[in-house]
Amino acid sequence: MITSFHPPIRTLMGPGPSDVSPRVLEAMARPTIGHLDPEFVRMMDEIKELLKKAFKTENELTMPVSAPGSAGMEACFVNLVEPGDKVIVCQNGVFGGRMKENVERAGGEAVMVMDAWGSAVSLDKVAAAFDAHPDAAILAFVHAETSTGVSSDAKALCALAQERGALTIVDAVTSLGGTELRVDEWGIDAIYSGTQKCLSCAPGISPISLSAKAVDKVKNRTASVQSWFLDTNLVMGYWGGEGKRAYHHTAPVNALYALHESLVILHEEGIEKSWQRHAFHHQALKAGLEAMGIGFLVDEANRLPQLNSVIIPEGVDDAKVRSTLLSEYGLEIGAGLGDLAGKVWRIGLMGSSANRRNVTLCLSALESTLLGMGASVKAGKALQAAEQVYLQAS
Amino acid sequence: MITSFHPPIRTLMGPGPSDVSPRVLEAMARPTIGHLDPEFVRMMDEIKELLKKAFKTENELTMPVSAPGSAGMEACFVNLVEPGDKVIVCQNGVFGGRMKENVERAGGEAVMVMDAWGSAVSLDKVAAAFDAHPDAAILAFVHAETSTGVSSDAKALCALAQERGALTIVDAVTSLGGTELRVDEWGIDAIYSGTQKCLSCAPGISPISLSAKAVDKVKNRTASVQSWFLDTNLVMGYWGGEGKRAYHHTAPVNALYALHESLVILHEEGIEKSWQRHAFHHQALKAGLEAMGIGFLVDEANRLPQLNSVIIPEGVDDAKVRSTLLSEYGLEIGAGLGDLAGKVWRIGLMGSSANRRNVTLCLSALESTLLGMGASVKAGKALQAAEQVYLQAS
Repeated sequence: MITSFHPPIRTLMGPGPSDVSPRVLEAMARPTIGHLDPEFVRMMDEIKELLKKAFKTENELTMPVSAPGSAGMEACFVNLVEPGDKVIVCQNGVFGGRMKENVERAGGEAVMVMDAWGSAVSLDKVAAAFDAHPDAAILAFVHAETSTGVSSDAKALCALAQERGALTIVDAVTSLGGTELRVDEWGIDAIYSGTQKCLSCAPGISPISLSAKAVDKVKNRTASVQSWFLDTNLVMGYWGGEGKRAYHHTAPVNALYALHESLVILHEEGIEKSWQRHAFHHQALKAGLEAMGIGFLVDEANRLPQLNSVIIPEGVDDAKVRSTLLSEYGLEIGAGLGDLAGKVWRIGLMGSSANRRNVTLCLSALESTLLGMGASVKAGKALQAAEQVYLQAS
Repeated sequence: MITSFHPPIRTLMGPGPSDVSPRVLEAMARPTIGHLDPEFVRMMDEIKELLKKAFKTENELTMPVSAPGSAGMEACFVNLVEPGDKVIVCQNGVFGGRMKENVERAGGEAVMVMDAWGSAVSLDKVAAAFDAHPDAAILAFVHAETSTGVSSDAKALCALAQERGALTIVDAVTSLGGTELRVDEWGIDAIYSGTQKCLSCAPGISPISLSAKAVDKVKNRTASVQSWFLDTNLVMGYWGGEGKRAYHHTAPVNALYALHESLVILHEEGIEKSWQRHAFHHQALKAGLEAMGIGFLVDEANRLPQLNSVIIPEGVDDAKVRSTLLSEYGLEIGAGLGDLAGKVWRIGLMGSSANRRNVTLCLSALESTLLGMGASVKAGKALQAAEQVYLQAS
């Protein structure tokens, strides 16, 4: 007989989901109302307003896709990529590879610009790709690579695409709310994110935003968008404009209560303050890890504060460390993906997980666990180093 | 300044979402854990078991799609329909039309079998379509049409498809948990449902199940599935088999807590008992409405107990009645869709909404509201008629 599920209490410092605020969990548990209820429609308008502020955009087509980030990615590609379109896709981790899949399944041609996992997207290589393919319609890249913890220069990449007359599709799943992101100022044409990273909301929803130029391309397509569920021409009948909403699909009512609350929390803090907080706790975590003798995969200049890929000390049993942290401390950190499996851990400081308590717990639990396994890390230095960062700030 | 959203309290008797049990809301608000956490993976296995029992199937590929019913529909079509496939699509309401869109966007050819809105799918017409198109690869139909409240004979339609060597795709969004449904016994090859109807869970997730024959067709496709997000070949790396799970997308953790709890509740009651409960409260609602002089759109033989399309009395202002019920009684009933807009109301008795309190509230509030507007309905008879049904049962 299967009975009710009661999850264990975890501290989520992996690549997402991050710790969800009790305020968000409580909002999600409020009584369900109809997806066409006037009060719900009013809340939808508020979500759009809050998302515009979070993305720093005035784009009318700014809305949450009713499915996880992977569907937000697919929404951008299936709407913007027409059969035969050439798309320059930058790959420097897992998610660039997924973009390639999306381009090809939408009937486009992916021109790949490859960089090493852990490196930022190379502007020179992208410029060369445009030289070789002046007819490229779209440039697609990942702003914050969750698989490696590297940040790429979205502003410069978008400027380059504009010079070459191409639209941009930007993966901001891990950047939104955690690091500087300015959709209108940088001229991003299509962007998607997720709720479970720096917004600290439950996973399952993907905020997207399309510029007027991007919307024009979708409206002027010759072929239908291949996905009915993700066709923005149809979805905007429900999410678009003011007043009357046409039924498209049944919105995930309670998940949207949660998104609303997480955005209210973000704006209470202020988006720039949230960026600063992520950077600040990253400094403390970094000081502690380095004092322990643990290094980073990514160069300091391109490092994401919210996703720390750190090198697993030699001879250490990756899986055993992670399972000990989980079972003994209720602490989740992430494994490496692909070629980085067994080589790095991914320590997230996302959203409400970016706080002093989590940094301290992570450093302490990791040090104890590694020492307990006889790993050659420096003992007794990490907390003091982190503490220095916090003291200097106060 | 936008602040936290506090929804009004509603009684949900529209076409879905239905009233969500406090147990489900509470489950959804439990702390988020990682989507690869061993405890979460254990819960996923339980969800699969519970869904198999709900669908009455042993299909290994039985899982919840991380998005609403419309995405579950799309998952079935994009996986099973290959470019050039001929699909017989039965349309007797909104959702048959959506199936046609799905077939065409997947590169298939839709052969339409049209029946009037409110009529069941005609077996004779389907047989004739197979005669005219013996190469049809798939038969697709809606078991319980949410737009009209009609039930079609899924068992007979599947038997017919099997005789003709075609696979079946069945829309069970509104039937699962509410009326008889036997996936294996009836030989359904692909089926999708939603959480927000007779499972009385929050909207946002779509349970699906594919037979071994359907899985074979997907595995032997020549072209890739056009959706990366919905490609069952990939999704099953996360949901399939026992033990190790490969990351595909981040599962909507809390929404799955909710689905788990709603399925536990369903099986505590027993699925056959749930079907009986829906039929029983429908009898009471029907007796009350008819005593008031309000008739049904659908013939008694094909009427869904969980979705009652009733004829709006002549001269009555449809929208005014619905908005009065909402504002004065917190009661939501549904409007008609398409050609039925302004002609019918759709009164749902789905999941936990199918109870005596709701039936009584609906009859009382509707009678008062209609009389208050001077509509020519019979006064003072409805409650007594419903009461008779309840008394006979006790």
